[in-house]
Amino acid sequence: MADKKKLVSEITSMDVDFAQWYTDIVKKAEMVDYSSVKGCVIMRPYAQALWENIQRTLDTMFKETGHENVAMPLFIPESLLQKEKDHVEGFAPEVAWVTHGGSEKLEERLCVRPTSETLFCEHYAKVVRSWRDLPKLYNQWCSVVRWEKTTRPFLRSREFWWQEGHTVHATAEEAMEETLRMLNIYARFAEEWLAIPVIKGEKTEKERFAGAEKTYTIEAMMHDCKALQSGTSHYFGDGFARAFDMQFTDKNNTLQYMYQTSWGMSTRMIGAIIMTHGDNDGLVLPPRIAPTQLVVIPVAAHKPGVTDKAQELLEVVKAAGVRAKIDLSDNSPGWKFAEYEMKGVPLRLEVGPRDIEQGQCVLVRRDTREKTVVRFEELAATVPALLEQIQQALYEKALRNREEHTYTAQSLEEMKAILQQHTGFIKSMWCGDRACEEKIKEETGMPSRCMPFEQEHIGDVCPVCGKPASKMVVWGIAY
Amino acid sequence: MADKKKLVSEITSMDVDFAQWYTDIVKKAEMVDYSSVKGCVIMRPYAQALWENIQRTLDTMFKETGHENVAMPLFIPESLLQKEKDHVEGFAPEVAWVTHGGSEKLEERLCVRPTSETLFCEHYAKVVRSWRDLPKLYNQWCSVVRWEKTTRPFLRSREFWWQEGHTVHATAEEAMEETLRMLNIYARFAEEWLAIPVIKGEKTEKERFAGAEKTYTIEAMMHDCKALQSGTSHYFGDGFARAFDMQFTDKNNTLQYMYQTSWGMSTRMIGAIIMTHGDNDGLVLPPRIAPTQLVVIPVAAHKPGVTDKAQELLEVVKAAGVRAKIDLSDNSPGWKFAEYEMKGVPLRLEVGPRDIEQGQCVLVRRDTREKTVVRFEELAATVPALLEQIQQALYEKALRNREEHTYTAQSLEEMKAILQQHTGFIKSMWCGDRACEEKIKEETGMPSRCMPFEQEHIGDVCPVCGKPASKMVVWGIAY
Repeated sequence: MADKKKLVSEITSMDVDFAQWYTDIVKKAEMVDYSSVKGCVIMRPYAQALWENIQRTLDTMFKETGHENVAMPLFIPESLLQKEKDHVEGFAPEVAWVTHGGSEKLEERLCVRPTSETLFCEHYAKVVRSWRDLPKLYNQWCSVVRWEKTTRPFLRSREFWWQEGHTVHATAEEAMEETLRMLNIYARFAEEWLAIPVIKGEKTEKERFAGAEKTYTIEAMMHDCKALQSGTSHYFGDGFARAFDMQFTDKNNTLQYMYQTSWGMSTRMIGAIIMTHGDNDGLVLPPRIAPTQLVVIPVAAHKPGVTDKAQELLEVVKAAGVRAKIDLSDNSPGWKFAEYEMKGVPLRLEVGPRDIEQGQCVLVRRDTREKTVVRFEELAATVPALLEQIQQALYEKALRNREEHTYTAQSLEEMKAILQQHTGFIKSMWCGDRACEEKIKEETGMPSRCMPFEQEHIGDVCPVCGKPASKMVVWGIAY
Repeated sequence: MADKKKLVSEITSMDVDFAQWYTDIVKKAEMVDYSSVKGCVIMRPYAQALWENIQRTLDTMFKETGHENVAMPLFIPESLLQKEKDHVEGFAPEVAWVTHGGSEKLEERLCVRPTSETLFCEHYAKVVRSWRDLPKLYNQWCSVVRWEKTTRPFLRSREFWWQEGHTVHATAEEAMEETLRMLNIYARFAEEWLAIPVIKGEKTEKERFAGAEKTYTIEAMMHDCKALQSGTSHYFGDGFARAFDMQFTDKNNTLQYMYQTSWGMSTRMIGAIIMTHGDNDGLVLPPRIAPTQLVVIPVAAHKPGVTDKAQELLEVVKAAGVRAKIDLSDNSPGWKFAEYEMKGVPLRLEVGPRDIEQGQCVLVRRDTREKTVVRFEELAATVPALLEQIQQALYEKALRNREEHTYTAQSLEEMKAILQQHTGFIKSMWCGDRACEEKIKEETGMPSRCMPFEQEHIGDVCPVCGKPASKMVVWGIAY
């Protein structure tokens, strides 16, 4: 059996090679395994349990705001994908094509859905007839396929799991309201559940979703100061409705086109959790989303009464509403400590013979390693409070990281100078001209992340062309 | 707005054309919509809500018995599918093939998973090293694709949603125990939650899953007296383990092959619910699984106090733990009655001005149309009790249907004579010879359903060859 040193030594330090550290973690924490299908991963039980917690939380938020789940087909006929010009241009280059069913060649190729706007459009065109049928607020949980060239577990893979909401409304105002409502849900979920601070804003035209009139995003900063787009919400106006002939009869008995939105969040958020909170000993999971919030580890478990007491404490903690488990395997305590640190379990409860004599046990925080001696009778109150403290501390630490690595620049030269010393977000003004945006990306490697809702006055002119600029943009190297 | 007559008149009577009745129901109850992908359906919110209840219930049962969820890739490389000879022969003729990713032709074709044994085998071969890693008890919720020629919503479609459990064990005994444990879970779920009585038994060799040593099944009888295979559990021995080189080190430090099982239940069960309990007015849903168990319909809602009282009663019923909703739309009560009958909501609560004066409301059962006048103060106790009565009554009615349409036969001639008059299950002895089984299917149209665990003594000889026969088989025309 490996001791702590051995287990941990197999992870590359994040300061040496962040990308390798990430890859080591997803393997060592048993989150993914690679399959023989290139670019596709297996989500192992621990990652799946985390994803199920994410799903349950988001699904509840969706249902509380009136959304219903559906399941659309996995396939999209080529002719259906082609109905909306911008959309097909955006997605056709990266879809997988089914050409044969059994031994027969198909009359028409089917793509494996890269996203399901087209299927929802076709369905809404059929089932919505009058204003009484609106809005339709649908969501689906599924996997989608995009034939990416370079892949990384959770961050970019050929198949990934997500939810995609697709809604139709009688008016542009209602659709826009929905678009922003869902962006706010994503932001609240990221911040309150995943302890990941995000910047809410609008994407520039260049970075918009294929076919959208407006794309809104939440952008997070990872520990290495790169950006991760963490959830997007799109407003389509009636563009798809016109392409798919999605009409309804309004209250005045007139045919109108529907207004539409879509929004998605994916298993990418598992990557975000790893890269925001993880450290050189492994994962660090925010308590609210962690599959296991506390692990009980008996010390000197062979001594009389230790295992019984450990199990009794487990029940106390569980009764306090905590997701807890106990490790009674014959591995050494040191090995177990390292194992659950690797898995990012927020709290460890140690209890041995001497503790029992003194009527106490020890709680160890995964994030700070802080130890707290707790009397048995205080355990039920202490654990939930500590978990909340950890949740808050993780959020604040991530926020501090973002604040410390966010810079402002007045000119392209200043941007480049900052990037020679730092990685991070750079805020600057922008004139709104695509050419200037492209120039910044070309010269600095930073695409625009978004035009934040919370605007600041950085200056008066565009850092590239020098023309008057009233929009502040956040730039950053992105995953 | 349609009145009750109009809505119902659009359903074909089940006595006239059961298949058309079924198709009408799935459309009229808004369970599915057809998509432009031939043979694939859209699960609309009502079917999806029912499926989510099924998922939640089964998933809890799986987790209580130590199973963990994972997510495997959607694709299987052709070479991987081909590793187990029987398996590939069974599935290759009906898989969909991906040949292109983006604009490039793939070096190796990928099939869209028809079932995932091969992927689990590959994974287990990698992650299981010692007896300490066993058993591995994995399950996944996903959709699979089989390129069927003729399709029907829920019963047979090119894409369907299911769970597939895949487990590996150190010994044959443990694997067999697991195989039967899961069959029993399926049986319990079908009977206690879906109110569908099932016959547990073993499939004949001819009807086994491709690659399995033993296949166990639960078989249900639909209202039209045809059989529906409702869940299967397979024992693989070490057949796949040998094909995929799945070895582990046992306690004596010797390399051994793993023993394996798989088991699945699918959205087909939605079809089973429809065809077991439905009637000429629409769906009839078992209360335990129904998305909505009770609907409150105010009568003369414009009269003062009616809507308020109706909402108050809704809250009383919800507080009693019942999934309830209220319909306050401006449709007529008659229209609403028909609508929720179509949707199979188990109980309807009617309340109007006169009821309120008398301190009472009316509960109407969907299954029997029985009306019960209930005093407001008794509502919270009456509703859960009535729901339980409905659940039991549905089970007993289905059981009665099966018992009344199960026959015994001593000879092939007798079988044919029975089938001229009736549809149903026929029990007979069988010598175990595949030729006799095939002869019965050929001459009567009935494949064997299973060799029930609860054997009966029907006779002493095979009805075909006349040789001694000690096994009782149930035969039936199947979906």
